[in-house]
Amino acid sequence: MVYIDKDASASLYEQVYLQLKSGIASGSIPEGTRLPGIRTLSKTLGIARNTVNKAYTQLAVEGYISPRKGSGFLVEGGSDTPFRKMEYSSTSESGGHDNLSQENSEKIEYDFQYGNFPHNCFPSSAWKKHTSAVLRDEDTSCLTQYSNKQGNLSLRQELRTYLHHSRGVCCSEEQIVIGCGLHYSLDILCKLFGNCKKIAMEEPGYYGARELFKNNGFSFYALVADKDGLDLDSLKLADVCAAYITPSHQFPFGSVLSVYKRKKLLKWATESNSFIIEDDYDSEYRYDANPVPSLQSLDSNDRVIYIGTFSKSLSPSLRVNYMVLPKRLLADYHRLFSSYSSPVSWLTQEVLARYLATGGYAQHVRKMCSVYRKCHDVFVQECTEQFGNQVVLHGRGAGLHFLLEFPGGTSIERLINKAEEAGVRVYSVQPFWDCPDISSNNLIFMGYSLLDEKKICDAIRILRRVWIE
Amino acid sequence: MVYIDKDASASLYEQVYLQLKSGIASGSIPEGTRLPGIRTLSKTLGIARNTVNKAYTQLAVEGYISPRKGSGFLVEGGSDTPFRKMEYSSTSESGGHDNLSQENSEKIEYDFQYGNFPHNCFPSSAWKKHTSAVLRDEDTSCLTQYSNKQGNLSLRQELRTYLHHSRGVCCSEEQIVIGCGLHYSLDILCKLFGNCKKIAMEEPGYYGARELFKNNGFSFYALVADKDGLDLDSLKLADVCAAYITPSHQFPFGSVLSVYKRKKLLKWATESNSFIIEDDYDSEYRYDANPVPSLQSLDSNDRVIYIGTFSKSLSPSLRVNYMVLPKRLLADYHRLFSSYSSPVSWLTQEVLARYLATGGYAQHVRKMCSVYRKCHDVFVQECTEQFGNQVVLHGRGAGLHFLLEFPGGTSIERLINKAEEAGVRVYSVQPFWDCPDISSNNLIFMGYSLLDEKKICDAIRILRRVWIE
Repeated sequence: MVYIDKDASASLYEQVYLQLKSGIASGSIPEGTRLPGIRTLSKTLGIARNTVNKAYTQLAVEGYISPRKGSGFLVEGGSDTPFRKMEYSSTSESGGHDNLSQENSEKIEYDFQYGNFPHNCFPSSAWKKHTSAVLRDEDTSCLTQYSNKQGNLSLRQELRTYLHHSRGVCCSEEQIVIGCGLHYSLDILCKLFGNCKKIAMEEPGYYGARELFKNNGFSFYALVADKDGLDLDSLKLADVCAAYITPSHQFPFGSVLSVYKRKKLLKWATESNSFIIEDDYDSEYRYDANPVPSLQSLDSNDRVIYIGTFSKSLSPSLRVNYMVLPKRLLADYHRLFSSYSSPVSWLTQEVLARYLATGGYAQHVRKMCSVYRKCHDVFVQECTEQFGNQVVLHGRGAGLHFLLEFPGGTSIERLINKAEEAGVRVYSVQPFWDCPDISSNNLIFMGYSLLDEKKICDAIRILRRVWIE
Repeated sequence: MVYIDKDASASLYEQVYLQLKSGIASGSIPEGTRLPGIRTLSKTLGIARNTVNKAYTQLAVEGYISPRKGSGFLVEGGSDTPFRKMEYSSTSESGGHDNLSQENSEKIEYDFQYGNFPHNCFPSSAWKKHTSAVLRDEDTSCLTQYSNKQGNLSLRQELRTYLHHSRGVCCSEEQIVIGCGLHYSLDILCKLFGNCKKIAMEEPGYYGARELFKNNGFSFYALVADKDGLDLDSLKLADVCAAYITPSHQFPFGSVLSVYKRKKLLKWATESNSFIIEDDYDSEYRYDANPVPSLQSLDSNDRVIYIGTFSKSLSPSLRVNYMVLPKRLLADYHRLFSSYSSPVSWLTQEVLARYLATGGYAQHVRKMCSVYRKCHDVFVQECTEQFGNQVVLHGRGAGLHFLLEFPGGTSIERLINKAEEAGVRVYSVQPFWDCPDISSNNLIFMGYSLLDEKKICDAIRILRRVWIE
């Protein structure tokens, strides 16, 4: 099944992962096949167990295989694979000591807000250095000229390389449009879609995108993103111009769209002459496996609009994101926006291009990923210890947030108020639903990027005290 | 008519200007009044002739009075004042020597492009200094947080003061929305106007704004901005939600909307429950008088949306502009854009706020104004000498561009091609018209901010050689 070449330039992990993946994708390893156990395969191939484990984990995250209790991994079929939720049930219960009973209820000491970071996470000195260098070294005539509406060529070239390497995105710099945030990119798309004013969106899904589409006169077709998966069959009848989705880390559920669902979506887009808007908003943060390749990387029919951002990896207030347009949309883009300029400062783009070119950015992302991985692990561990099976954690393994589900039912409003009184701010998920839904009534939304490990521990202990005891 | 108090804190110029203005506005100096000659008034008041001249010029630019050939100034009436065009007819003809016959026709050496500047016009060292200072001194926690959708408070406070001082704009920082360019601001307005999808625009008018409105599904009502003035009477029947205009320097004609037309527009907006979008795109550059006060400063009914930019004064690629919303639009703005962030980098805004606060910006604007004044004067002088009465110059006294009219008729395409062959790039005005119009067939558009005085002279001499001789 797998052949190892110890002299090959590809790593042992890559050889195992890629051969299994192509075998499954081509059908030569058919659906339902039980893969050899990790120990068996590592012995057979003469490689480390960790290597096999890493390859299996990656294939599982991408939806090619799934773990079976006590019986290794099964190859998944494409027919009826559910939308995979990275669901985590805390099972052990332990009595963590709560020594914070004198909490000041007036002040929010622990804010589980999403998207903001501690201030020391911005690479100020590198930014200062590159700014000075650009203003000193470069031809700065662009500072006094209107900019290309797609953004600086230097940044687009760097992004093309970076996106190919990190997300498998395949494009030329001519397809990249630098923007000043998701709203900017979606606004452009709304105009590119012309008279069609209906779009498919995950339900629940990102309320910011929904607000943007509403402001552009769009109505919605709901792609239900709960335990029953994305209902792609009915999409055929939806009569939409595009589907806006977060396939690599569903916002807010945190699930990963399986490779079969991805292919089904791509097929739908081709057959219905529609587009898929892939919002890859936090792809840098994958802790249990390598980042899942982008949907765009699977697209051979020029149907995926890929959108990414520097907001989560570098700074939310820098206001730089990027969009990769399918080639078929380029002519319309140039026709409709002929008088537009880039919305992002040339200087900012040039500094960013240098930061990417020197490797500083990749290094920064690795550092941040390691910081947040620790926060993620502490969050999981502490939730397990404090809440046991009273709480189900959604969204494990990636990103910067969790959903807490109270399977026994609860009053979310009461939980939020009790936490607030104890100095901990947690959030409702209701804004993510277009139509108020009963299923949001036992879910709490918690971002953890603003807090350090110690604070996360302390806050979860407080929550246990005010919620459970 | 005018009383001078030499001990007053107001300058002599201000006393003459303000007293005449309020006398005319209140009707105590009625329409048709012939003002005393400059020499007479200066003698009567015991002040310098220059002072009186300056006050009269300013009042004339603002449309309160108008010069009569050989007979001083007449007070204008509000009833039927035409849209004033700063029209300049070159009258003297002189044989400037053309010594550039060996021009290389392949290369454009002289580009009369609009909006771009020479690269040494950006204050790089000040920018570098303030960037370092912000990253070193300030609380940079905002760098790692999503920003207020209206922009940095510090910049909005600076802008409020600056706009009040320089343009008479009266607003609180709560009304200011920092944007990344005119398109951004207009996009927001399109959404604020709701279901109404028709707007009044000058014809000719700025094609960039027109493209933006078209992309938002708008149709147009044409406010004809030629020799017959803006037809404001028919506006009542236009059924539009707003009028987008450039009252202080009509783009492209360069005319100034008279104070009476301004008041008529304001009255229309109030009576029809509409808005006026005042695009004050190049207000910093007024050479023959002080800048004309903004339309917003005359508005007592909360009907004017004021838009300004740093593109002409500082850098077109910095991508920072600002919009002052009427108070009555604020609730809708906050409701519709609740999930939006500022489109401009927090760092850029903070650096800009410092540059304004330290007075560096005002100083820079004065310097640039003096540079462009010289270019403007050379352009006028050289056109007069080279073209005599074969060309009428439109847009004298302000801004960064001229319209050249060939009253005898001509083929614009031929002129553009001949210039191009001789290394000089000039532009058609046709893009400014929504419906192709015969009146654009004898007009050439020329921006002069990219060239220095010497180059302007050389280029106009070349144009004479290829156009006239």
